[in-house]
Amino acid sequence: MANVLNPDALHHELDRLDGWEGTVKDGISKSYTFDDFAGSIAFVNDVADHAEQAGHHPDLTISWDMVRVPFITHAAGGVTQDDITQAREVDGLPV
Amino acid sequence: MANVLNPDALHHELDRLDGWEGTVKDGISKSYTFDDFAGSIAFVNDVADHAEQAGHHPDLTISWDMVRVPFITHAAGGVTQDDITQAREVDGLPV
Repeated sequence: MANVLNPDALHHELDRLDGWEGTVKDGISKSYTFDDFAGSIAFVNDVADHAEQAGHHPDLTISWDMVRVPFITHAAGGVTQDDITQAREVDGLPV
Repeated sequence: MANVLNPDALHHELDRLDGWEGTVKDGISKSYTFDDFAGSIAFVNDVADHAEQAGHHPDLTISWDMVRVPFITHAAGGVTQDDITQAREVDGLPV
């Protein structure tokens, strides 16, 4: 099991990501905006495909043209380096 | 614009639905459970197809094997008969 990042390490990682925010205990998240509901659903399917490959499944919230993607490792009790990796990989998906 | 149901009418309608709950002001919702994340995503796509046809797009929350579907008509300020219709139609989707 990976260790939870310390707050300084998380701050450093968030600085290197685009639009992700959060805390060690609450997790990190980013909201992606699309042209419409169909755009959101297409993105959800891309994230889902990635999640299945990664074995790391974020809870997803769809609000019309917006999809919120959070990452936290509940079993570790907070944000780990793996969550940062997932965030970076989701950012690499087509938006 | 459809009228918001009164509390008695909503109660009557909820009694006739399977597993939907809520209030006039907060909206109605139901959580559907599946075998896994893939089951949830398949259902989200079915709900999305229905939403596009109906022109009524619920916010959706995916939590691994569970999908929460809420309905409310924000423009009317609460739950209308149309939300009840959408709930019944989503219940008719394959689960």
